[in-house]
Amino acid sequence: MVVVMGPGADEAQIEEVASRLRLMGLSVHRSDGKERIILGAVGDLGALDVEDIRHLPGVQDVVRISVPYKLVSRAFQPESTIVTVGGATIGGKQVAIMAGPCAVESEEQVEAVAVAVARSGAFILRGGAYKPRTSPYTFQGLGEEGLRILRRVADRHGLAVISEVLDTQHIPILEKWVDVLQVGARNMQNFALLRELGRIRKPVLLKRGFSATIEEWLMSAEYILAGGNRQVMLCERGIRTFETMLRNTLDLSCVPVIQQLSHLPVVVDPSHAVGVRDKVPPMACAAVAAGADGLLIEVHPHPETALSDGAQSLYVPQYEELVVRLRGVAKAVDRTL
Amino acid sequence: MVVVMGPGADEAQIEEVASRLRLMGLSVHRSDGKERIILGAVGDLGALDVEDIRHLPGVQDVVRISVPYKLVSRAFQPESTIVTVGGATIGGKQVAIMAGPCAVESEEQVEAVAVAVARSGAFILRGGAYKPRTSPYTFQGLGEEGLRILRRVADRHGLAVISEVLDTQHIPILEKWVDVLQVGARNMQNFALLRELGRIRKPVLLKRGFSATIEEWLMSAEYILAGGNRQVMLCERGIRTFETMLRNTLDLSCVPVIQQLSHLPVVVDPSHAVGVRDKVPPMACAAVAAGADGLLIEVHPHPETALSDGAQSLYVPQYEELVVRLRGVAKAVDRTL
Amino acid sequence: MVVVMGPGADEAQIEEVASRLRLMGLSVHRSDGKERIILGAVGDLGALDVEDIRHLPGVQDVVRISVPYKLVSRAFQPESTIVTVGGATIGGKQVAIMAGPCAVESEEQVEAVAVAVARSGAFILRGGAYKPRTSPYTFQGLGEEGLRILRRVADRHGLAVISEVLDTQHIPILEKWVDVLQVGARNMQNFALLRELGRIRKPVLLKRGFSATIEEWLMSAEYILAGGNRQVMLCERGIRTFETMLRNTLDLSCVPVIQQLSHLPVVVDPSHAVGVRDKVPPMACAAVAAGADGLLIEVHPHPETALSDGAQSLYVPQYEELVVRLRGVAKAVDRTL
Amino acid sequence: MVVVMGPGADEAQIEEVASRLRLMGLSVHRSDGKERIILGAVGDLGALDVEDIRHLPGVQDVVRISVPYKLVSRAFQPESTIVTVGGATIGGKQVAIMAGPCAVESEEQVEAVAVAVARSGAFILRGGAYKPRTSPYTFQGLGEEGLRILRRVADRHGLAVISEVLDTQHIPILEKWVDVLQVGARNMQNFALLRELGRIRKPVLLKRGFSATIEEWLMSAEYILAGGNRQVMLCERGIRTFETMLRNTLDLSCVPVIQQLSHLPVVVDPSHAVGVRDKVPPMACAAVAAGADGLLIEVHPHPETALSDGAQSLYVPQYEELVVRLRGVAKAVDRTL
Repeated sequence: MVVVMGPGADEAQIEEVASRLRLMGLSVHRSDGKERIILGAVGDLGALDVEDIRHLPGVQDVVRISVPYKLVSRAFQPESTIVTVGGATIGGKQVAIMAGPCAVESEEQVEAVAVAVARSGAFILRGGAYKPRTSPYTFQGLGEEGLRILRRVADRHGLAVISEVLDTQHIPILEKWVDVLQVGARNMQNFALLRELGRIRKPVLLKRGFSATIEEWLMSAEYILAGGNRQVMLCERGIRTFETMLRNTLDLSCVPVIQQLSHLPVVVDPSHAVGVRDKVPPMACAAVAAGADGLLIEVHPHPETALSDGAQSLYVPQYEELVVRLRGVAKAVDRTL
Repeated sequence: MVVVMGPGADEAQIEEVASRLRLMGLSVHRSDGKERIILGAVGDLGALDVEDIRHLPGVQDVVRISVPYKLVSRAFQPESTIVTVGGATIGGKQVAIMAGPCAVESEEQVEAVAVAVARSGAFILRGGAYKPRTSPYTFQGLGEEGLRILRRVADRHGLAVISEVLDTQHIPILEKWVDVLQVGARNMQNFALLRELGRIRKPVLLKRGFSATIEEWLMSAEYILAGGNRQVMLCERGIRTFETMLRNTLDLSCVPVIQQLSHLPVVVDPSHAVGVRDKVPPMACAAVAAGADGLLIEVHPHPETALSDGAQSLYVPQYEELVVRLRGVAKAVDRTL
Repeated sequence: MVVVMGPGADEAQIEEVASRLRLMGLSVHRSDGKERIILGAVGDLGALDVEDIRHLPGVQDVVRISVPYKLVSRAFQPESTIVTVGGATIGGKQVAIMAGPCAVESEEQVEAVAVAVARSGAFILRGGAYKPRTSPYTFQGLGEEGLRILRRVADRHGLAVISEVLDTQHIPILEKWVDVLQVGARNMQNFALLRELGRIRKPVLLKRGFSATIEEWLMSAEYILAGGNRQVMLCERGIRTFETMLRNTLDLSCVPVIQQLSHLPVVVDPSHAVGVRDKVPPMACAAVAAGADGLLIEVHPHPETALSDGAQSLYVPQYEELVVRLRGVAKAVDRTL
Repeated sequence: MVVVMGPGADEAQIEEVASRLRLMGLSVHRSDGKERIILGAVGDLGALDVEDIRHLPGVQDVVRISVPYKLVSRAFQPESTIVTVGGATIGGKQVAIMAGPCAVESEEQVEAVAVAVARSGAFILRGGAYKPRTSPYTFQGLGEEGLRILRRVADRHGLAVISEVLDTQHIPILEKWVDVLQVGARNMQNFALLRELGRIRKPVLLKRGFSATIEEWLMSAEYILAGGNRQVMLCERGIRTFETMLRNTLDLSCVPVIQQLSHLPVVVDPSHAVGVRDKVPPMACAAVAAGADGLLIEVHPHPETALSDGAQSLYVPQYEELVVRLRGVAKAVDRTL
């Protein structure tokens, strides 16, 4: 860390900053420039909040040289993490597809999608049983009954299951029925939940909060790894910007950024980002071209009667056509699908 | 709700939309214009997701005429809600101040602040015992021990206590020790938590998520009221924008907007919004001038050694000076303090 | 346009709104619902500012059913506009590449890039002669001398030339030397400039303002078309969001959105969006996969000594390798390159 | 400037960075830490683009210690700039009010407002003659005829005049008729315009671009001062965020931030920020409480028939009532009005 003292800083202020840094176990090096004095601090910055230093009297600027996360960083683990779920691996050469309805509504509905998912070569079935809804008055999901349906249908087709967890109290139920626990965007900084997910031994897919920076997102993943669970996938699902034509703005450039900073796989969810069916295929293709390790796609046998997010769900034939196209794109960027 | 059919919509599409609306219990009125056909739907839209209609085939646009919230709206309850906490009322003519340290560190620390808070005429002592921290490696709060300290000190000075709740499992502990439960910005859409807070009988202060729209914020408050708890205060604490000079951008215009849309009191937290001590007093004055019903302010006896957010905490004498100035501003806009 | 009167609107207010709409030449249809009264207005809304109606007494909401632009819309012209520049067409099946240095520095520099551009099969050479710089103290471009260099080099290699125009006074100079005039992001709403560009007869590439909505962007293009110049290309170059890891957030979903709303071609500039070399190739591939009609890419023979934006310029061999990869992606989505 | 080399940087890379910095006339100091090597560069950084260094091979991070602006900074000129316009001073103890209609429509209209403005104790009359409109089809202003009206009316009432300049070609006309030239938000980075305004000898009011950072805004002011014109006022008018309830988000915390960084006066325009009449008074009060040096307020004798922005214009009696209230707020924060 480099602390830049302001032009008017006096010796007392400089000494206060230096002693504060030493108190934190850091060794401090002072460098007197013509215009300014700079303090370099070396050591374990893990417990340090840079802001606490930045605003000490006399301090002009503070530069954190090391990043605040550790276990998720590629510096800590150079080789990419490969998460294995059922017959799929995420994070290697293969691009994994997780497809299914937004919410589980009935066994018939899930079955119709699962047939297509299995036939398309995908290995993971998605479906929500606990739904985070903005309004207390809309459909909140089937709960455990939805998970039972997902499991039964998935088993019939040799698929793995991913579903969302909303609260610490539901973790044991999810653990019982699903293969991957998904943390939704609104819970990305629900630290109590993240902490508990660090204690389980199933893969977690951590969606990016719709206003979370990449660094905050990695810090949330760090909570899970710090608890002992290393099977974490990150999932970009669109960020909130001033543009309102679509639901959110899909930030595809986060894919190569994360692959540089972290060893964790990056999945992209184009369905929630764009919110409207006909924009899903081009953005799914773009995600694979940008290097995504997986896709999370909503498919529904009858989107027009879906209980939630029907507008963004692909029809089954659309999905099948998309998979063919994705295969071509994957090949063009040296991946398989 | 008004559904505008696109220029190319055919009869089958129009009928599909109309029958879907009728299925939801709405009565539908059709109006054939020269260029377009419009469907008006009247009835209870509470359970309707506008997006599900917007993307039906042939639909060009959908306009929700009624708002998605009900219990929190001023249309539902024209008179302002006044929340009573200890000796203070929030939502009436008086502007309430809630002051104290970011995190409870020790009884000595809280005592030093409480003396000033009580002397300044404020009635509510703030202090965090469970802290939501971005990093798993930084100070996470004293937990229940912190709440005990807060309670003891507050009781000595005749103050009420407000503190943050992070998870559904902590609610009973908070209920035991504090007078107001605070929901932090990162949990504004933790729907499991909101639902549980609807069942308790203590006031809740709901902070705005740093990227939440005013409508989403009101919907989150609706969760609590829908559960039966009407003692809700809203608290603006800065939103995330492209400007990074300060921590967040304090959105003071939300104050008059909410006072028009809702009967709930609006509190402003300038300390977290600006993140740096010397910008707190002008923004606190601005908040009162904009019509805020209360302020949440961080004060610390020794900010430079605070375990969290020291940079934004006022020194005790600064706080006392600010209160004098706030009194003048309140008077200028026909409020008391 | 639909005007929704509030629940408490009285007859005088309704009549005032209606007569105001009639004054604007619109015909007004009134519909009395159980809860609310709605006015439908039909006619030419081109000169109407919706906001002026929204805030009349008694009005609750106003919904513009038709869009504010006309000439740029696909409703007005269903077939895609194809812009022809030298040997390239932009807007058809072929994906066009425009490549070159950020700023023209010398004939040697431009020559080195032009060789590669021509060899790679691209037809258009880019290079800035008038540079919009945030600081008055940094390199501002070679001016007309730069344009002369560009022209000479391009002619030697059979390439067309694109360069930026900063002010109405420079238009005649640009017209003399270049084939496509580029409007930079900071000038997207320089209406005096747009108006003048409507009078020329050379293609214009209009970059999206870094905080412009898609609708504002289309309205700026409308200025040019309204002046009589139909050869307009739109160019996405990243938008400003809260994420600061890269320079801007490339909004690739605008590509399919614009292709639905407008007949104008959409070009993507990944270099300015990401601002750092190694993220350019994945985002260029993603742009083509998303359906972009063209790419604007910075290439420099010696990026490390470039006078501006060297960090985002590809080395010549990197550029050549990228073109090969882009060809595969284009093929996978039924385009050529 | 501090350049932090990455852990894997080799000697050749370090030397390349160092020699590049020396080429720019900087003196370079090297400091070898246990984990990393840091280069400190001292000298005139005015012409340096930090990004060009950040992406050299081996570089991990670059920290600019000095700010990129000079003439506008308080470090350069500690005492506040006071701009004198007619009978008003802006930047001293007095808070200046500039009021008038959005657009000049007729002499009667301007007269009606001017009477109230003069009576309220304000000294500056605002009114647009050249209007920047998003649509080419809406009212674009009366041009020079509008300026003549403004001048005549203002002279009758002893008021000064402020009006907007849209293009370099209009500067001489504006110079002839008005006392203050206003640069609109959309032109904040029209560098050709800023450069020309540096050559005139009348005060300039520079509005913040609705997505401009404070630093970019100060850099634009630097263009004007660098040209020799020191009479510059900054004007906050709302920034673009995700919140769409009002037109923009008024960023009042920029007021104390700028007063710390720069000696230039800061004016606030609540009318354009909120876009709706009844939110203007609370935000005007908040602006003064936050420390603003002036206000720009829209007033219209008949807002409901205004040709532009009627919804945000105060009625004359509302304006007069607001001025009384503002006086109280000003007094509470030790200012006069």
